[in-house]
Amino acid sequence: MAKPTDITWMARALQLARRGLYTTHPNPRVGCVLVKNQRLIGEGWHVRAGEPHAEVHALRMAGEAARGATAYVTLEPCSHQGRTGPCAAALTEAGVVRVVVAMQDPNPDVSGRGIAKLRQAGIAVEVGLLEEEARSLNLGFISRMTRLRPYLRLKMAMSLDGRTAMQSGESQWITGPHARAEVQRLRASASAVMTGVDSIIFDNSRLTIRAAELGLEDGESIVERQPLRVVVDTQLRLPQAAACLREPGRTLVATVSGHDPQRRVRLEAAGAEVVVLRAGGDGRVDLSALMRYLAEQELVNDVLLETGATLAGAMLDAGLVDEMQLFVAPTLLGGEARPLFALPGLTRMAQQRPLEILDIRAIGRDWRITARPERRQE
Amino acid sequence: MAKPTDITWMARALQLARRGLYTTHPNPRVGCVLVKNQRLIGEGWHVRAGEPHAEVHALRMAGEAARGATAYVTLEPCSHQGRTGPCAAALTEAGVVRVVVAMQDPNPDVSGRGIAKLRQAGIAVEVGLLEEEARSLNLGFISRMTRLRPYLRLKMAMSLDGRTAMQSGESQWITGPHARAEVQRLRASASAVMTGVDSIIFDNSRLTIRAAELGLEDGESIVERQPLRVVVDTQLRLPQAAACLREPGRTLVATVSGHDPQRRVRLEAAGAEVVVLRAGGDGRVDLSALMRYLAEQELVNDVLLETGATLAGAMLDAGLVDEMQLFVAPTLLGGEARPLFALPGLTRMAQQRPLEILDIRAIGRDWRITARPERRQE
Repeated sequence: MAKPTDITWMARALQLARRGLYTTHPNPRVGCVLVKNQRLIGEGWHVRAGEPHAEVHALRMAGEAARGATAYVTLEPCSHQGRTGPCAAALTEAGVVRVVVAMQDPNPDVSGRGIAKLRQAGIAVEVGLLEEEARSLNLGFISRMTRLRPYLRLKMAMSLDGRTAMQSGESQWITGPHARAEVQRLRASASAVMTGVDSIIFDNSRLTIRAAELGLEDGESIVERQPLRVVVDTQLRLPQAAACLREPGRTLVATVSGHDPQRRVRLEAAGAEVVVLRAGGDGRVDLSALMRYLAEQELVNDVLLETGATLAGAMLDAGLVDEMQLFVAPTLLGGEARPLFALPGLTRMAQQRPLEILDIRAIGRDWRITARPERRQE
Repeated sequence: MAKPTDITWMARALQLARRGLYTTHPNPRVGCVLVKNQRLIGEGWHVRAGEPHAEVHALRMAGEAARGATAYVTLEPCSHQGRTGPCAAALTEAGVVRVVVAMQDPNPDVSGRGIAKLRQAGIAVEVGLLEEEARSLNLGFISRMTRLRPYLRLKMAMSLDGRTAMQSGESQWITGPHARAEVQRLRASASAVMTGVDSIIFDNSRLTIRAAELGLEDGESIVERQPLRVVVDTQLRLPQAAACLREPGRTLVATVSGHDPQRRVRLEAAGAEVVVLRAGGDGRVDLSALMRYLAEQELVNDVLLETGATLAGAMLDAGLVDEMQLFVAPTLLGGEARPLFALPGLTRMAQQRPLEILDIRAIGRDWRITARPERRQE
């Protein structure tokens, strides 16, 4: 049975887990607290892949005091021999007598095994405390494990009348510096940042995270991992001179077969990695195939999609958009400016795409709307 | 000097004034409280034109007790012999010794006269307590008095991607019943509801207020005054069969000269009142002339504009939009659907129309954004 104070300790463990928001990729964010006689004796969080898991940090801090303690862990302790040894065994060896787990491992291959190992060792295990909060920390990791595709966040900056750029493509800057810093943080928390080749051709975006723009204390260490840049480029039109090819980190160009091989050679010489995927019915890169590729081959948990109406609409129509982050500037750009979504074939009200709005809040002079698509009505 | 309790009593007077929100047209909303020895001895509000002013109601309630009392009035007491006699004189005769006034009369012809009369009679008068709140109750009346035009609220119902209807014009219903009830109340608080003839042709809107949809206790008595319906109709295309012509209340059709006189005759036979105004540079009804006509000839304080992108954009470009009430539904209609504003000539970011967002709040499943245009940047 969960005790009233259990919630407090688990909340602390979740806070710790959150510290790994920008660094654990491709691993999940995990926090751990060790408690004995209602006193905290050890705590830790997973910082980055290859380094110890949260439980190991907490056990090291507690030392001998861990004997007889309760462990609060935001994710089921691992049972497999990874780079840092199985945490279930470490907890057992340290003499922990009770383990409270927020959520089971979402990996169907190992889910429940760590808990079983602990129980076999005679440890009392409770599962599900603050599970919703724990899941929200690792939506991308859970998506990759259970759906074999990343969690896709679509970010768009728009005017109040739903426009992302002038007809000419001019768009800098619709939103203000606070919103742009928030976008930097969204990029930093993502495994990959995705865009369409047209956005690169027009804006020459770097798609990077910059320490000075993150607005975070540990910005310098966060930008050591640049999110993978993914350019959807069916026709292989990415210019060799694109700024993103000269930035730290990798740029993956997703295309289809049948192009002049020299184009690929030149792009690769310029620093791009080209991946050829199957084409969808419209001849363009099959977006579901791309998402699966990213999950399986690149271990991408979260994608931040920053793009124009065409790719945004195609992702939405393919059912691949999990969440929208709309930054709304208090301005009007008028009916000739570029739309938010191209949704070809949407001509009747019955075909509208209903959304669920989760949150609206002020970001400097702009507003951020968090929404997600509802299941289609028709 | 204002005393701490003065604010409490004036807040009460403002509450009372608000009760006239839907009924005082073309008069302002006014409330009055009479207080002696920190006890309320009389209160009242102006209900409708032709009936007594707030002060008269409060004095009648107080009777002889008014002698020696303080009066809190949200608007300067009148000094002229209207249909109900000058209130300044009534307060003096009743023996009131102190009058606290939230704001002076905005009518430049009489402003300050009531206060002067009171002071001449030896009464202590203080002006300006909760003035901002008092002004917000009568933005329309103040606008008519000081600018010779109504206060214009533009109401639009839109999808999150800034669309008001499908390409075909189909739009029922973008927003939900709570938002539609709010629009009914906005209509009820306005002197006039304005639209473009195309909106009538497509939707056949009645532009009326309906007791059942207002969601107010005294709905039946409120709908006895239907706001003036104003149709902007340069070409005199309003169908004789338009539903709004068969509803209680008046429909004013604003047009320009030069049409077949028979069209006007037929429209008038169908129940419309036709007013011929000068044409603007684009040959359409000059919107500034229309607004001035409504203020001067129809004593219109507030206009609620419910229309499509063309008239909305023209009003915005003419600098006549004072406030926007945008009802945003959590849905996407796509890039082919109808835009919020047609703003011809807006092609560069530098020409964008900045807004000030005053409020965002949930209305059922929709959101209401209150905004107003900022002064143009260029």
